[in-house]
Amino acid sequence: MTTGVAVAATPTSASVETLDLDPAFALHRGGKIEIRATVPVRDADDLALAYTPGVARVCTGIAENPALVNDYTWVSRVVAVVSDGTAVLGLGDIGPSAAMPVMEGKALLFKEFANVDAVPICLDCTDVDAIVETVVRLAPSFGGINLEDISAPRCFEIEDRLRDLLDIPVFHDDQHGTAIVALAALQNAARLTGRTLGDLRAVVAGAGASGVAVTRILLEAGIGDIAVSDSKGMIYAGREGLNPVKEALARDTNKAGHTGSTEEALAGADVFLGLSGSTVTEKAIASMAPDAIVFALSNPTPEVHPEVAAKHVRVVATGRSDFPNQINNVLAFPGVFRGALDVRASTITENMKVAAANALAGVVGDDVSPTYIIPSPFDDRVAPAVTAAVAAQARADGVARL
Amino acid sequence: MTTGVAVAATPTSASVETLDLDPAFALHRGGKIEIRATVPVRDADDLALAYTPGVARVCTGIAENPALVNDYTWVSRVVAVVSDGTAVLGLGDIGPSAAMPVMEGKALLFKEFANVDAVPICLDCTDVDAIVETVVRLAPSFGGINLEDISAPRCFEIEDRLRDLLDIPVFHDDQHGTAIVALAALQNAARLTGRTLGDLRAVVAGAGASGVAVTRILLEAGIGDIAVSDSKGMIYAGREGLNPVKEALARDTNKAGHTGSTEEALAGADVFLGLSGSTVTEKAIASMAPDAIVFALSNPTPEVHPEVAAKHVRVVATGRSDFPNQINNVLAFPGVFRGALDVRASTITENMKVAAANALAGVVGDDVSPTYIIPSPFDDRVAPAVTAAVAAQARADGVARL
Repeated sequence: MTTGVAVAATPTSASVETLDLDPAFALHRGGKIEIRATVPVRDADDLALAYTPGVARVCTGIAENPALVNDYTWVSRVVAVVSDGTAVLGLGDIGPSAAMPVMEGKALLFKEFANVDAVPICLDCTDVDAIVETVVRLAPSFGGINLEDISAPRCFEIEDRLRDLLDIPVFHDDQHGTAIVALAALQNAARLTGRTLGDLRAVVAGAGASGVAVTRILLEAGIGDIAVSDSKGMIYAGREGLNPVKEALARDTNKAGHTGSTEEALAGADVFLGLSGSTVTEKAIASMAPDAIVFALSNPTPEVHPEVAAKHVRVVATGRSDFPNQINNVLAFPGVFRGALDVRASTITENMKVAAANALAGVVGDDVSPTYIIPSPFDDRVAPAVTAAVAAQARADGVARL
Repeated sequence: MTTGVAVAATPTSASVETLDLDPAFALHRGGKIEIRATVPVRDADDLALAYTPGVARVCTGIAENPALVNDYTWVSRVVAVVSDGTAVLGLGDIGPSAAMPVMEGKALLFKEFANVDAVPICLDCTDVDAIVETVVRLAPSFGGINLEDISAPRCFEIEDRLRDLLDIPVFHDDQHGTAIVALAALQNAARLTGRTLGDLRAVVAGAGASGVAVTRILLEAGIGDIAVSDSKGMIYAGREGLNPVKEALARDTNKAGHTGSTEEALAGADVFLGLSGSTVTEKAIASMAPDAIVFALSNPTPEVHPEVAAKHVRVVATGRSDFPNQINNVLAFPGVFRGALDVRASTITENMKVAAANALAGVVGDDVSPTYIIPSPFDDRVAPAVTAAVAAQARADGVARL
């Protein structure tokens, strides 16, 4: 009866033992999460409640009142972490199996940082229609959808369509997680230097998922001016060959009308946000305005080395844990979903994202300094603050159902 | 940005409190399973191994050698419990949300009886092509697929196609779980009465998922003669309007050529297997051969009351926990998947199912009696015996990859 698919070769135990000399492989042996029971199954009485015949009464109750699925199953507290493996970390299109350690890691962090149950789902399809269709079919099983490591510009359309089709939160973390944390850090950096976001002119290198989302949230939050570059230079209205996402960016950004390179645009700028995987020269950083702010967020190699940038600017942040001011998504996504699930939000609004950023910035409070514009992921005030802010904003925005 | 879907009404807390007076509802509050971490995330060092940057090395390793996904993620130990909600228990087509308590219950039983991690997936689609396509897209995330409560005859085609397309175990429990346990019980009942399966003529009422699968496994195991009925009476070669599954049954069964009702066919029969939701008269049961065996497996109402049947036959079994000899799938599916996953089987062969039944029958051993032809689900010898038999048979059949 089987099988049309070749059976993959199993690595020898010797090769696995060698890999396990790397502590990252050793830690990953057997995976990082498991399913656990939350009710007992000790005897026939337990079985008759948790399974047949008792379960039939619960099924009938939900069939009569579908909203009860949220009270009597795990659905309203479980998030699907969905990827197609096309843009995994900085590794690119490595496919669904190779993406699984990241998605499983995300599920681990959801649980450990905010007690959100999450299931990693790596899909063997990359077509936009297919991904949307598949997630819609899965949706009755989940209380939220965290999209992850899906390449741009497909990620934008997939998220937009799923947000329209589903009445549960859909959140592409590479976009909005990064955007929330970057906004929080930039608010504190501005405050530190006696300015507001409205005083700042920013240059964003990178028009992928995170570059676009960071730009959008900064516009929402009232940044003075912001311009975005891609591999061909600054994006401006009328530039040839822009895709629809970049065309929209061209309309909404770059008031100053920069048409050259990223480095040319940096002259006199207040903020550099690197989300590109490219590099900028020390000379360009040195040409920025006084009290400049540099977020060189590419991993593992920042756009400019943070120690080099620090010679010329007031505040430097990276995506790395071995330098001060790490812009790490784990500061946002656990609390964002915890807050949204707690009030059974039907969506995550722009306001909820900004509220999450404000809460995150607020954790730093009066301790703000050039090396402390964002809290540590292990600051246990973070997830509760983000959770509370997101839940309250969901209520204010009328999208809460509890 | 949202939402095309109406927001479902939330029940008032008062209505939920009333429902919780039923202990089955009370037990189901908040669901029955959760995700748990199996590795620590205490500090930045842990985070750097379980997530970035350490996880990138594991992803790269899997990209280079895809089989490593089985060693370094949870994939090879997690099963998807997939339903479309079209044939849930005896409740029928109640949809994916109302099916969730059963699928979550199944995941609970997988964990508690055989330490198999399982994720309930209720799909918002019922088209055969759509279900097959969706499960294929999900397959990189799972080490096995347990199909559940999908209506016949769609369930047969869905399982067959998925078995052809995937190189992981695909097992429709309503078919094969029931078949394995029924075969085990019938082996012991035959032994008790000094006969072998080859000595027996059986009548099966019901040509749905379980009726077809029980018939198939009994043919495989060498039953003397077997004939199947549906709501229109006995299935025989040449009967008008048979679907392809019943046509195949007509070819392979009913050597005696019964063409009338189930009850007519029972005259002189050795075994009655009720898998239909219908009823048979006491008179028909009384017309069976000496030392007859009755498995009246419909739930909650057996085809004939077990105490009525016991007046006329030697051995009676039901699907209920409040009578002796409960034919319960939980005796099979946890160990079947545990054994298949343990050796990373690419499929579940017919031999593996028969081996599971033999192992299950063997647990009863010399203690066999008319009220003890099958072990209790809480007999802790069951899952290890089934696991070992399935794993050994996978090796013997050449489908094991470990």
